Amino acid sequence: MMETRGCCASICQCFFEYSTPKILIIRSFKVGTLNRITQALVIAYVIGYVCVLNKGYQDTDAVLSSVTTKVKGIALTNTSDLGLRIWDVADYIIPPQEESSFFVLTNLLITLNQTQSHCPEVPKTGFDCTSDRDCKAGSRDTRGNGVQTGKCVRYSAVDKTCEVLAWCPLELDKEPPNPPMLADAENFTVLIKNSIRYPKFNFNKRNILPYVNKTYLEQCVFNRITDPDCPIFRLKDMVTEANEDFQTMAVHGGVMGVQIRWECDLDMPSSWCVPRYTFRRLDNKDPVNNVAPGYNFRFAKYYKNGNNEETRTLIKGFGIRFDVMVFGQAGKFNIVPTLLNVGAGLALLGLVTVVCDWIVLTCMTKKNIYNEQKYSYVDDFQLLSNETP
Amino acid sequence: MMETRGCCASICQCFFEYSTPKILIIRSFKVGTLNRITQALVIAYVIGYVCVLNKGYQDTDAVLSSVTTKVKGIALTNTSDLGLRIWDVADYIIPPQEESSFFVLTNLLITLNQTQSHCPEVPKTGFDCTSDRDCKAGSRDTRGNGVQTGKCVRYSAVDKTCEVLAWCPLELDKEPPNPPMLADAENFTVLIKNSIRYPKFNFNKRNILPYVNKTYLEQCVFNRITDPDCPIFRLKDMVTEANEDFQTMAVHGGVMGVQIRWECDLDMPSSWCVPRYTFRRLDNKDPVNNVAPGYNFRFAKYYKNGNNEETRTLIKGFGIRFDVMVFGQAGKFNIVPTLLNVGAGLALLGLVTVVCDWIVLTCMTKKNIYNEQKYSYVDDFQLLSNETP
Amino acid sequence: MMETRGCCASICQCFFEYSTPKILIIRSFKVGTLNRITQALVIAYVIGYVCVLNKGYQDTDAVLSSVTTKVKGIALTNTSDLGLRIWDVADYIIPPQEESSFFVLTNLLITLNQTQSHCPEVPKTGFDCTSDRDCKAGSRDTRGNGVQTGKCVRYSAVDKTCEVLAWCPLELDKEPPNPPMLADAENFTVLIKNSIRYPKFNFNKRNILPYVNKTYLEQCVFNRITDPDCPIFRLKDMVTEANEDFQTMAVHGGVMGVQIRWECDLDMPSSWCVPRYTFRRLDNKDPVNNVAPGYNFRFAKYYKNGNNEETRTLIKGFGIRFDVMVFGQAGKFNIVPTLLNVGAGLALLGLVTVVCDWIVLTCMTKKNIYNEQKYSYVDDFQLLSNETP
Repeated sequence: MMETRGCCASICQCFFEYSTPKILIIRSFKVGTLNRITQALVIAYVIGYVCVLNKGYQDTDAVLSSVTTKVKGIALTNTSDLGLRIWDVADYIIPPQEESSFFVLTNLLITLNQTQSHCPEVPKTGFDCTSDRDCKAGSRDTRGNGVQTGKCVRYSAVDKTCEVLAWCPLELDKEPPNPPMLADAENFTVLIKNSIRYPKFNFNKRNILPYVNKTYLEQCVFNRITDPDCPIFRLKDMVTEANEDFQTMAVHGGVMGVQIRWECDLDMPSSWCVPRYTFRRLDNKDPVNNVAPGYNFRFAKYYKNGNNEETRTLIKGFGIRFDVMVFGQAGKFNIVPTLLNVGAGLALLGLVTVVCDWIVLTCMTKKNIYNEQKYSYVDDFQLLSNETP
Repeated sequence: MMETRGCCASICQCFFEYSTPKILIIRSFKVGTLNRITQALVIAYVIGYVCVLNKGYQDTDAVLSSVTTKVKGIALTNTSDLGLRIWDVADYIIPPQEESSFFVLTNLLITLNQTQSHCPEVPKTGFDCTSDRDCKAGSRDTRGNGVQTGKCVRYSAVDKTCEVLAWCPLELDKEPPNPPMLADAENFTVLIKNSIRYPKFNFNKRNILPYVNKTYLEQCVFNRITDPDCPIFRLKDMVTEANEDFQTMAVHGGVMGVQIRWECDLDMPSSWCVPRYTFRRLDNKDPVNNVAPGYNFRFAKYYKNGNNEETRTLIKGFGIRFDVMVFGQAGKFNIVPTLLNVGAGLALLGLVTVVCDWIVLTCMTKKNIYNEQKYSYVDDFQLLSNETP
Repeated sequence: MMETRGCCASICQCFFEYSTPKILIIRSFKVGTLNRITQALVIAYVIGYVCVLNKGYQDTDAVLSSVTTKVKGIALTNTSDLGLRIWDVADYIIPPQEESSFFVLTNLLITLNQTQSHCPEVPKTGFDCTSDRDCKAGSRDTRGNGVQTGKCVRYSAVDKTCEVLAWCPLELDKEPPNPPMLADAENFTVLIKNSIRYPKFNFNKRNILPYVNKTYLEQCVFNRITDPDCPIFRLKDMVTEANEDFQTMAVHGGVMGVQIRWECDLDMPSSWCVPRYTFRRLDNKDPVNNVAPGYNFRFAKYYKNGNNEETRTLIKGFGIRFDVMVFGQAGKFNIVPTLLNVGAGLALLGLVTVVCDWIVLTCMTKKNIYNEQKYSYVDDFQLLSNETP
């Protein structure tokens, strides 16, 4: 009975105990100054760098984005194959819609009236021949345009090449026209509509800012200085901002990155959260370690002639693909990262004592006095030697 | 010899030293209670909020996703231009496949039998004319449809406009039909197959859950209450969930976000990791600060007539683009974030001593006794004044 | 006057105070060893695991990527419908360009010369009929191919089905050919150009590495052992690496993930930052809980015949979609995460004292001596009892 009461009491006593370390206070100009300066440095770092610059008190979220684009403009070409011809948006945007990029045709090699038939290969190493023995029926070379029939036929006055089953006539292996056929593309404009969402903070915004009205949108063109919020871009301006020349790039094509950066501090008014546009060329124009420079692809338009035979027009289209890349981070005050950073900061303040102690107890002239006061000893070795005899 | 031995011994001694702070224990109801409450608060925060709610003990990874979609349904239209006409999936999905979105045509303006030729511009400010002097040969206005020839020609009984080289006849600048032509699209269904991966944890999953069998999949339609795991969605249901009216949206088109959220706690059974579907309209339907509302694009079908002349059917297609947006985070126990959070928590416990000390040593009635016991002083100033005389 | 001076002096004194805890040093083999081992463990964890393995001293950034692809190869098919036919890149890549994926047609069901007209439905449960009463005019079943006219017509010698308005003749509901029609697709090669950017560190790189020259690129094919840096991939090799059989997969189609991982330590030379390619099948080939296995979609080529009537060739295309998925993280030294981890590590070192204290003061034989030396008491209860009498 007595014992349980004693046990109870001791638990109680324990609960109401408050442990606080015993502190030695050293009053000294040198030591005090050293201490305060080190403390100030740590606090300045925690507040200045972690909290203000890196916003360590904020929880962050990555952006979810949706992009639609609409290109406008008309180009005129005049070639021997096609005559005078107008190109509108249904002609030069391929495919007609994509999720977050668009391709503008700027140059092309056209091969009209192809049918599935037999014709001599384009002269190239491996396809030249002098007799049928040089050609292997059924052989399909990845560099070739069809399947060899095994015959050797006349390609031109001087050349004989292996005959192939292919879409004939074959596309000629030549450089794209320079200047580019759709040189007018530099004046095309594109309206980029971008809607973003930060799901963690339930925050939505669009790149058409609230103060922008319909009248302005109908005639504005993006300009970094005069119209930085206009979402309509002239193709040439985008390419120029990336330090490239549109007409040069248009010849072989390329890939442009339209980077929209949404860096949002949601502790601030939401009107401060605005998109920043930058432009960058994404493909490698360096001709040294490069293969298939620029950007091109082949596509065809299929027709049926009077005899119900399929013919096609093959187009090797060169052009600029614009990839709209939306990125950014939103931050908003949250207690967890705040306390995480404050905790880490406090732990760093603990370092101050370690550093100062070391200096005080080894370098100061009065180190012996300090040592004497700071440390007490329980010396097992001494006890041991005392006990031994 | 003696010295090295002494040095060795002192290093040894140092190694076997254990430093522990001297502690003053204050046994007091008030102080003890204060101390325990503050400690309890900090521990409750660390365990409750950081560990349980925010799962601070988990390492996280972002989702990698792949989406395929398959739309089903048939629409019937009846117009003066086209007569009675059936639209199937090959007609209304443009382009036929995309990576993680699909476009369903819901309304259209069609311009049949366009050829490259000359015709008067559509009457609009800037294109009206009274004589050839009002038209500038070679001028191409971004708002126009072609390149002006410099002639002023009769457009209708009342209007004269500048002649252009273009795809003629020109598309009429009119509003899309209302009700929309493919109103039947509301009953189309789409099967969305989504496969995700968390590379850091080597975890794969699909949105067709293991217990779902083929028979169920062949006839189910997603319903938030009765069929929340069915990956087949009726288009109208998706639009309705986003608080929009399908028929209204179908007229001018729009962009819908199909959000699939994979929030997975991989410390739990993997069967708890299931997708959550939500639907949101992504484009701006607010007519005030908007240009080109809705979602539309132009595309063409190219034909060749008997004379080998190219003609095309231009379609301005209005429709709904569904962007499948997959996001989420997986978390799994990892020792590094755990210790990071525990460490920060411990540092916060250090704060408790600071706060309690301040209260104990300044506010308590017996503060002088506590002060006396807690602090010892080495006073350089006093030493100084003692030495001076 | 005297007072303000005193106040000033006390603030000064306070400023130059340095507080350092009073320490009890226990010199003991057991206790010292325990202490050092625990410390060593914590320090080893902080340095070894957090800093070296998890690179806790680095700030990280996610990758921004742009991908272009170019497929090469020719396939030959021989069917009763189409005769001997060559398929080139313009025929089998649909759509001709996409942002970060490409689709290769490997198998197809073709329905030639469809026109908008009337024909009997394909026999299936629900479409069979014996008289006109079994068919409902205007009914459009999602499983059907058109809108019913209400008539019951002869489909074959044995079957009568409801007549529909549709693109006739209807596509037959049959399995795709096996072996696949474009079996040659296994030898197609694809050049994948990938350009990445870590915006936070302003770091760009391409998957065509600096030492790779044009000559090598023109003839190399990726091989994990002999050519790990060649960005040209044989389709069959990719599928084989994912432990799948190309010819089997080609029959019903599928989705392949081409994963490019850029794990970059930007504290190291940038030439160490290289892409790692892995391949994985993304769709579910398990036939049990699956619907519409494989990957296929329908598209059409539209023609006009002599009477200006629209006809189309419907193709149900089966094939492999390759999704290029670029992911990875770059890390670079940054003072904030470093100090965060160091701070948390220090706080963990504080734990060492807690653990050692507990052992020393409860388990050691000389615990009473230690206790006596470590703790002083201010006992309010005792004071209380002293005061009471």
